[in-house]
Amino acid sequence: MRTSIATVSLSGALTEKLTAAARAGFDGVEIFENDLLASPLPPEEVRARCADLGLTIDLYQPMRDMEAVPKDEFERNLRRARHKFALMNRLGADTVLVCSSVSPLARDDDALAAGQLRRLADLAQDFGIRVAYEALAWGRHVSTYDHAWRIVEAADHPALGTCLDSFHILARGSDPKGIEDIPGEKIFFLQLADAPLMAMDVLQWSRHYRCFPGQGGLDVAGLLGHVMRAGYTGPLSLEVFNDVFRQAEAGPTAVDARRSLLVLQETTELATPPPPVVPTGIVFAELVTPDVDPVAAVLGALGFARTARHRTKPVDLWEQGEARVLVNTGPAARRDGTALAAIGLESPDPAGAARRAEALLAPVLPRRRALADAPLDAVAAPDGTELFFCATDRPVPPSWRGDFEDVPHEVPASGVDHIDHLALTQPWHQFDEAALFHRSVLGLTAQESVDVADPYGLHRSRAVTNADGSVRIALSVGPAPTDDGARAQHIALATGDVVAAARRFRAAGGRLLEVPANYYDDLAARHEFAPGELETYRDLGILYDRDTGGTFRHCYTQTVGHVFFELVQRDGGYRGYGAQNAPVRLAAQRAGRPVR
Amino acid sequence: MRTSIATVSLSGALTEKLTAAARAGFDGVEIFENDLLASPLPPEEVRARCADLGLTIDLYQPMRDMEAVPKDEFERNLRRARHKFALMNRLGADTVLVCSSVSPLARDDDALAAGQLRRLADLAQDFGIRVAYEALAWGRHVSTYDHAWRIVEAADHPALGTCLDSFHILARGSDPKGIEDIPGEKIFFLQLADAPLMAMDVLQWSRHYRCFPGQGGLDVAGLLGHVMRAGYTGPLSLEVFNDVFRQAEAGPTAVDARRSLLVLQETTELATPPPPVVPTGIVFAELVTPDVDPVAAVLGALGFARTARHRTKPVDLWEQGEARVLVNTGPAARRDGTALAAIGLESPDPAGAARRAEALLAPVLPRRRALADAPLDAVAAPDGTELFFCATDRPVPPSWRGDFEDVPHEVPASGVDHIDHLALTQPWHQFDEAALFHRSVLGLTAQESVDVADPYGLHRSRAVTNADGSVRIALSVGPAPTDDGARAQHIALATGDVVAAARRFRAAGGRLLEVPANYYDDLAARHEFAPGELETYRDLGILYDRDTGGTFRHCYTQTVGHVFFELVQRDGGYRGYGAQNAPVRLAAQRAGRPVR
Repeated sequence: MRTSIATVSLSGALTEKLTAAARAGFDGVEIFENDLLASPLPPEEVRARCADLGLTIDLYQPMRDMEAVPKDEFERNLRRARHKFALMNRLGADTVLVCSSVSPLARDDDALAAGQLRRLADLAQDFGIRVAYEALAWGRHVSTYDHAWRIVEAADHPALGTCLDSFHILARGSDPKGIEDIPGEKIFFLQLADAPLMAMDVLQWSRHYRCFPGQGGLDVAGLLGHVMRAGYTGPLSLEVFNDVFRQAEAGPTAVDARRSLLVLQETTELATPPPPVVPTGIVFAELVTPDVDPVAAVLGALGFARTARHRTKPVDLWEQGEARVLVNTGPAARRDGTALAAIGLESPDPAGAARRAEALLAPVLPRRRALADAPLDAVAAPDGTELFFCATDRPVPPSWRGDFEDVPHEVPASGVDHIDHLALTQPWHQFDEAALFHRSVLGLTAQESVDVADPYGLHRSRAVTNADGSVRIALSVGPAPTDDGARAQHIALATGDVVAAARRFRAAGGRLLEVPANYYDDLAARHEFAPGELETYRDLGILYDRDTGGTFRHCYTQTVGHVFFELVQRDGGYRGYGAQNAPVRLAAQRAGRPVR
Repeated sequence: MRTSIATVSLSGALTEKLTAAARAGFDGVEIFENDLLASPLPPEEVRARCADLGLTIDLYQPMRDMEAVPKDEFERNLRRARHKFALMNRLGADTVLVCSSVSPLARDDDALAAGQLRRLADLAQDFGIRVAYEALAWGRHVSTYDHAWRIVEAADHPALGTCLDSFHILARGSDPKGIEDIPGEKIFFLQLADAPLMAMDVLQWSRHYRCFPGQGGLDVAGLLGHVMRAGYTGPLSLEVFNDVFRQAEAGPTAVDARRSLLVLQETTELATPPPPVVPTGIVFAELVTPDVDPVAAVLGALGFARTARHRTKPVDLWEQGEARVLVNTGPAARRDGTALAAIGLESPDPAGAARRAEALLAPVLPRRRALADAPLDAVAAPDGTELFFCATDRPVPPSWRGDFEDVPHEVPASGVDHIDHLALTQPWHQFDEAALFHRSVLGLTAQESVDVADPYGLHRSRAVTNADGSVRIALSVGPAPTDDGARAQHIALATGDVVAAARRFRAAGGRLLEVPANYYDDLAARHEFAPGELETYRDLGILYDRDTGGTFRHCYTQTVGHVFFELVQRDGGYRGYGAQNAPVRLAAQRAGRPVR
């Protein structure tokens, strides 16, 4: 099916929006009137630009408060419509959207509305234009799709049909099943938007918080199913008003948008991209660093040993138990200090995982390898993290491990077992995109988003995991786009005995994050501990949390560049990440850093 | 009356919050538990720090889901309470807040609630502590203040009283009149918060959007009246959860907070600061510039002439009609280019205006003047703009004009009459503070806040005016704290004939902002114009708006540094600022500038 996006969903000048939409692979656009008014390009040039980019102009919406109004007002509206239809001819747009009136002048009179829409359709027909009438959720008298359709049906004009908008329909809680009663050829247009479930004024909700399908809580896929069963053949068009997208770069937003449509089409069996290949483990985390010594010091104190070196690249493999960290000092090392640059994910089918990712518009990375290296499939996540799909120690394909040559080493017993989770701070404008990416491209499941207070603002955090918890990635964003403190990333290492692991770390010269004594006084008030237990935690800076049945004990290393490590002990099936303790941890980390 | 503020209302570490509260003149604080837990200071040191700063600790709220719970749960709660009461003794806090249960375990059983609260109060009494029980608006069974009071009354314990919170009471739409039926001595505490009127889930509304009294839409003053008539003698304490304040610097937020309480006390006749002295005109706008030539060029093209020079400072006076612009090239010139640094406001009583400002915590500026200069009273607005209270050409005090010495000049006829309004971009975190400042300190009236889309995000804009419109200041904020494009300021000049003024400006070599032809096509569709009229507007880049009865025509000069000028013609009592045209203007300004 053809896909389209409203220019209001993207940031920038009209030409930037068109370019972004085309690059992301959309077939068409809806042009939002203000974008055209603010553009220095005349309509003919906008049309030519779109044609050059391979975009059609699928919809234009220049009119408000058109129908069910007093005669004089309607005559003025027709005058305006005539101007706009002429403009649409210049643009090459053949469908106009008319939203139900919100004017205080509008009358609750379906016959009047139908009569006036018929006259409008007559005029439109002269210009070769179709009128798509849509119920706004906050329309003065017409606010439901079935009501809008009854008026269209009564008007009975070939150039008049209805436009359906998933937000307006689902936000009001209308039953979308009735859509199937509308003849498909009378559904002139379909606008799709999702939104987080929020109990708030629907107008504000619509204007500020819409998001792409799959990023919110509305059953957009269910609605699309009804529309397809009605026989709709027009484009799937995204119309999303979102304060964050307005500020974000248009390019990534357009890709995020089209990915959401691809997933929606897959869900509704309108498209069959390669199926997801869910990763079964975290094989390694790769740090890039311009300064290897502090990294080596922390890894060493954690019990990691340098076990192997890449045959052709300045990359070392450090291991402890099943936890593996690559330390890359090559030119890939970012100029802004030590950072987590790549993740190796164990994949049952690396090539299939890469095909899935590519089909869902993830940038496929060039294979940075020498001829002899194993062919590693890799894509970039929205935050730039490289994701490698690995097959470790299977006959086919060759293992990534084969690219490394053992160096003499001794791995001490440290109790670190494997990587429990990775925590990645996302670009501020791309939090929703990141969650959708990990869900759709990797086939992970997104948990609920939680707010976490740090002394200088609220963070949001959302984990994505596979079914058995062997892959856990915690995505977060800081309080504001400017917040430098929010760029931290961390690697959480699972241990069966966090007290022993923390002691070993400290004995080996590692520095643990200090936790205020007041925190432990509170723990004493909330829970009962064995004699001496709390004192041990206090001494080591171990934090404690509990959920139904399980407990979580964790502590943090100092930060190197943007990266720190966490030692975690999960018992009894604890499923969280210690979010309850995050404010204390964040405050302690802030305390060690100048702010602003 | 004593004033207090909850630490959660301010940004930063606990010690930063305490310092900010003390500097702003608060008498006490409520300590939010997470702030204490995250602090490295032991409770005794927090107590000492507060004492040093002259702050009492008026409230602590460490407990949730205390009452109306099963026996086992309640015993655990008592155990926790005992810990917390001991902690409060260390802190020197004698009132504990207990919010009504939200636990699914809580029972709808007032007798159980009263009985358990009585036991809690017994325990508290042993520690010399009073328990203040408050109804959360989303409490599971107790969600209104009168219900909470009935339970307190039934418990009948001297160490048990109620806590009233204006948000919880007003957000639910409860009638606050019943507060007067509660004996004053049983109202142990009063928390005050306002909030913008929003139709949304009350928990989210409360946690993210609270603001200081006078910044929202709740009748906090009315509620305070009822509480005072009940005989309350405790502190007025602000408890505000606000996502923006969490990020803002604590110092200005604390000042804003205390200003809001001062105004609230004035409104309720609990305090009598010097009365507002409403300004009666804009005497001048002062630009600072490191590079006078481009400024002089624009002013010259607008018809301004350099009429006088300050006797002792490098400041020139430029005049055209009643519009005056000071151009300051002295050391006060900011390093970041030409900016609007000061505003002269005509005041019926400059000294009185300054006394009012000082009483409401506006920083009073040192009189930067030579001995011979007129004594100008001046204060700083939250955005740093200096506000001078002027008496022009009255016998007493001496006029500011006397500090200037005429230079030979000829003022051409240009049609510019006076300064119509000034538009000032505010620091992103201080938009609400700016509106409250201008309302309370200057006695101006704040208009509704409007959203304005520019290509890279939503701006918000809000005008403050005096009654006859002779002082109009439009305050705005950009889409994000990072947005450089949002720092623009402008001076709007009133003219009786914008077409003639624009032509003169252009003929004199000035460059007007170009407005896209598409905008004029839309105007033609929306309104009827005299023959040739629209072509004239199109040629000059004049924008057009209309409200009930009046019309507004306006155009813009190029930008110099951070500043540009607008020529405006108001007819028929038009009251707005052309907000409808702002997206087109912003896009045109963005088009001339690199973005990001």
